[in-house]
Amino acid sequence: MSKDGQSRVVIENVQPAVDGGRYPAKRTVGERVDVTANLFGDGHDHIRARVSFRKASSAEWSQAWMTDRGNDEWAASFYAEEEGSYLFFVEAWIDHFETWYDGFRKKALAGVDVKLELLEGAIFLDGASATEASLSAMATRFRDPARYKESIGVVLSAEFAAIVERHPAVQFVTTSGDPLRVLVEGRRALYSTWYELFPRSSALEGGRHGTFLDTVKLLPRIATMGFDVLYLPPIHPIGKVNRKGKNNSVTAKAGEPGSPWAIGSDEGGHKALHPELGTLADFHKLVTEARKLQIAIAMDIAFQCAPDHPYVKDHPDWFRQRPDGSIQYAENPPKKYQDIYPFNFESADWKGLWEELRSVFLYWVEQGVTIFRVDNPHTKPIRFWEWVIGEIRSKHPEVIFLSEAFTRPKVMASLAKVGFTQSYTYFTWRNTKQEIMEYMNELVHGPSRNYFRPNFWPNTPDILPYHLQHQGENIFIIRAALAATMSASYGIYGPPFEFFENQPVEGKEEYVNSEKYEIKHYDWKRTNRMTDLLTMINRARREHPALQSTWNLQFCPIENPHLLAFIKTTDDLSDVILVVVNLDPHTPQSGYVQVPRSRLKLSDKINLKLTDLMTQEHYTWTQEWNYVELNPYKLPFHVFHVRIHESQM
Amino acid sequence: MSKDGQSRVVIENVQPAVDGGRYPAKRTVGERVDVTANLFGDGHDHIRARVSFRKASSAEWSQAWMTDRGNDEWAASFYAEEEGSYLFFVEAWIDHFETWYDGFRKKALAGVDVKLELLEGAIFLDGASATEASLSAMATRFRDPARYKESIGVVLSAEFAAIVERHPAVQFVTTSGDPLRVLVEGRRALYSTWYELFPRSSALEGGRHGTFLDTVKLLPRIATMGFDVLYLPPIHPIGKVNRKGKNNSVTAKAGEPGSPWAIGSDEGGHKALHPELGTLADFHKLVTEARKLQIAIAMDIAFQCAPDHPYVKDHPDWFRQRPDGSIQYAENPPKKYQDIYPFNFESADWKGLWEELRSVFLYWVEQGVTIFRVDNPHTKPIRFWEWVIGEIRSKHPEVIFLSEAFTRPKVMASLAKVGFTQSYTYFTWRNTKQEIMEYMNELVHGPSRNYFRPNFWPNTPDILPYHLQHQGENIFIIRAALAATMSASYGIYGPPFEFFENQPVEGKEEYVNSEKYEIKHYDWKRTNRMTDLLTMINRARREHPALQSTWNLQFCPIENPHLLAFIKTTDDLSDVILVVVNLDPHTPQSGYVQVPRSRLKLSDKINLKLTDLMTQEHYTWTQEWNYVELNPYKLPFHVFHVRIHESQM
Repeated sequence: MSKDGQSRVVIENVQPAVDGGRYPAKRTVGERVDVTANLFGDGHDHIRARVSFRKASSAEWSQAWMTDRGNDEWAASFYAEEEGSYLFFVEAWIDHFETWYDGFRKKALAGVDVKLELLEGAIFLDGASATEASLSAMATRFRDPARYKESIGVVLSAEFAAIVERHPAVQFVTTSGDPLRVLVEGRRALYSTWYELFPRSSALEGGRHGTFLDTVKLLPRIATMGFDVLYLPPIHPIGKVNRKGKNNSVTAKAGEPGSPWAIGSDEGGHKALHPELGTLADFHKLVTEARKLQIAIAMDIAFQCAPDHPYVKDHPDWFRQRPDGSIQYAENPPKKYQDIYPFNFESADWKGLWEELRSVFLYWVEQGVTIFRVDNPHTKPIRFWEWVIGEIRSKHPEVIFLSEAFTRPKVMASLAKVGFTQSYTYFTWRNTKQEIMEYMNELVHGPSRNYFRPNFWPNTPDILPYHLQHQGENIFIIRAALAATMSASYGIYGPPFEFFENQPVEGKEEYVNSEKYEIKHYDWKRTNRMTDLLTMINRARREHPALQSTWNLQFCPIENPHLLAFIKTTDDLSDVILVVVNLDPHTPQSGYVQVPRSRLKLSDKINLKLTDLMTQEHYTWTQEWNYVELNPYKLPFHVFHVRIHESQM
Repeated sequence: MSKDGQSRVVIENVQPAVDGGRYPAKRTVGERVDVTANLFGDGHDHIRARVSFRKASSAEWSQAWMTDRGNDEWAASFYAEEEGSYLFFVEAWIDHFETWYDGFRKKALAGVDVKLELLEGAIFLDGASATEASLSAMATRFRDPARYKESIGVVLSAEFAAIVERHPAVQFVTTSGDPLRVLVEGRRALYSTWYELFPRSSALEGGRHGTFLDTVKLLPRIATMGFDVLYLPPIHPIGKVNRKGKNNSVTAKAGEPGSPWAIGSDEGGHKALHPELGTLADFHKLVTEARKLQIAIAMDIAFQCAPDHPYVKDHPDWFRQRPDGSIQYAENPPKKYQDIYPFNFESADWKGLWEELRSVFLYWVEQGVTIFRVDNPHTKPIRFWEWVIGEIRSKHPEVIFLSEAFTRPKVMASLAKVGFTQSYTYFTWRNTKQEIMEYMNELVHGPSRNYFRPNFWPNTPDILPYHLQHQGENIFIIRAALAATMSASYGIYGPPFEFFENQPVEGKEEYVNSEKYEIKHYDWKRTNRMTDLLTMINRARREHPALQSTWNLQFCPIENPHLLAFIKTTDDLSDVILVVVNLDPHTPQSGYVQVPRSRLKLSDKINLKLTDLMTQEHYTWTQEWNYVELNPYKLPFHVFHVRIHESQM
């Protein structure tokens, strides 16, 4: 027999919960947490319910009343004000005071005798008088038959509704069980703007290996464009054994620099710096100078070794041995990757391996790195990531981990669940209106919303997608605009994207003459149409909080299949952004976009003032459906700041 | 640091699970249990996985291999052979033997050198030789460089695939956690055919109060029609205080029998019999005679009391007292139901109340009752039902509980989760093709499939739905055919349905002159079109296992919005039923129905032999789309038995 047999409310499906509470739901500082639950009792008695929440480090619970949204779904919200773990749970009970009140009103309004009901009401008022003494006198009046009509009037008054509201008759409470967790991370976990470059290609003058100090000189350029994360591919010593040459050739010629992802040589491993890039002091200078410009350095973490990595000699048991005593290189049969030794996470010394890899993160955190872009995390055990991210975060909660897992949906989801702050996505390949809408709706409204934070990349050093190959500027601009406005976090593999590099290895989604295997020399002093647009888009993102969230996106109907329109707003509608993009890079497109009246709380008389944040052109819209026209050769998108005329609010 | 750091497979979302394992999933004897889980590891290594299952009362686990169905979803099935609780869990691991085998094949077929791979293979064979000694010699041959080519041939042979298959390299296993439960109930939990009548109306001769012995005389009629459950509204003494009269009038005239749901008087309560119906011996005779005809008696359980129920005097604390000392009657303000006192489940003596109500079930089980149709369970606490059903079931696992909760979806679902065997449904109001298809797909494919077993009723004593009011025979026949063929369990409030009673209280979905408040006199010797059709439909249900499941339903495309078509098959296709119903009671309708080729495993050459189980007419279909025509004045539905011509299999 249950202990709480008198508790008549059932609580089911409390959200947000990830895998039933196995993992925390994620939010960032300032975001709203919408708690929902299915609540029902037996019969028609009224339920009252509240959410209790607190920071895990605080002793005090706060409360928010839940409201019935229909179909037995109740909701309450609170704001996650600080970084850290929050806990919450739901309580509900049959509230006999409210049930009585509702029944009384119906009976009184139907002219039914309510003498007995007034006596019952007096009992509730006696209870409430413990915290509001004046109600005791009201109870006495309710018991006076001479005041029968007067008392009915009192119950039917608006004031009485407030009395019922503030005196919940808490009894036989049902609780939702162990508190659920919300992990609240810093703003940058949600809103970040990434620029990727290879520091060895950062020399202003051509013809030589770039250095950290060269990269320092590029910082003002990157900051001016509005990026706040500078992501560097691995900066460790590059393996000399089985080094790859230009265009991924199996043997490098003398002097070829190799792939930065083949980590480690006699010059050191994951805690060392590639000597040609500079010293630790130079790296510190880069971190420090970047920070002055509000730019964080993101380091690449690729847990794999070149054959001459010191680990191979010092810890052969961390790798898989073959029957001839050689070490198993990476392969995707029949392909061989003999320049890379994967770790064997089934090693008998797996604990030693885990601890060493943790120490790599901690070492770089000590050097001032707070963001790690993790290479291929899906080729290392998910339980390892859960542990190591938990370990780092417990000491350094501000650290951000970006998962570079371009793999199957459930694996990407799982990595996000266990702790990765942000994730690369399929945006890179979502190109048509329908594809984009379906994918965004899945990200924003699907269950992964509670743990999977997208970071949109139109390109990466590994990926030149087919739709950019051999194409002109317009499609690059379209892809940048989509990434930067739909997702609060986005990034570009900078120089090839800025300079419209569109030459693939034919038949593949790879760059020909990839920078992964050679040093590039860019004309860093050049700016162009893309540079200007990125600067304006990033400024719009910085100045408009509506663009600093991904979760507030709502598509707007527009009857042209080449035109995509969506709105983003802050919760309080103090900032409203409407984006319209022409997905056709070749032809001007026009159509009518529907303003979402209910979302914007518009009355019948629409009066919207729009400013295009790119062109600074002004428009006034007074209709629900409004004409837009986008010529991709001029500008394939609008980013409108929308002001709702006062009288319409 | 986790203890099983070397276990690299992640297991998520193991199904069937109800609320994460809080409640058991339900099946019936002979049904297949499809276990699914999301499984993935890091990288490309091969996973092997199995389901372990056993009856809770058995010590031995059985195993079934899971297979990858794509998108990281794996599945295995087992059959629930016996009544009782089953347990199951999932295990998965990286299988290095299979990974090696796959890589070897790719390399060998690509002409890559595999000398080292053969040595690795020999190690796996050494391991396998522990259970299959002959593999030791094969390992030796693999190590012989002179047999290099021969050994490659061995690995590429079909026999070697079988060796890999039967020697899983079980290591670093991931387990899904606490076993999940499946409650396996008897066949009748899924497949049952209900006839409801008021025994007081069962006298063959008019003009007097019917008795149990009268009902005994009706049993052959009911059995001939093919019903196997006879459900009786409450048969307890009826309250005399505040008794309701004809048509629910607030005061009964002298001699009016009252509503059987106003239970209890000075003649006794929930464990007593209404004296005018007969003695306990008479009731025993009814139970015994029914059982001889394979009919089970279903008793109505309505946990509420008339004002003169003995409980009211003996246990006033089980009811809610009002300030004047009176007992709170049922109400739905401003409506009053003064003939009914609800129990107060918040009573300080709630344990005493729970135990007494349990004793009511146990008393009637002792009298031979194995089916309870529970009246308005949603007006009593759900936790009470969970407890009391668990208590009864632990001693009497065969007992069936039908939930009469015509209420909100989540409440109905919750009652089914906590233990009700079957549930009344919204079928009663699903009338158009789209409504019916949506609802059936929700029942069959939605999450409630694991716990909510529908029982379809076209009418009840409380409900004469609008679509039957003032209508002719055809719609009654359509509704019966739908209920009986879509759902493995269905029932009718018999006599008014058989005899096409269609007169409502105007504006309401209620019968005028409802049998709830008066004795009816039916011409029990009469049979008609409905009697004949029910007899044939129920025979088809009895003879065709495909009709004895609800879960095997699949709709077939048919381009007429008035025609509904669906197929039901046994797992092995040994029984195939195709049903086509004309939903339009007034007009003949025709259309082309598409045969589901993949479900029936049909080749390009279709050759189906159909027999209409109502008319015994034969058809041969050799096309994917086939013409059907249904005249509702003749017969508004087909129930085809489909035989797949041998050469097509």
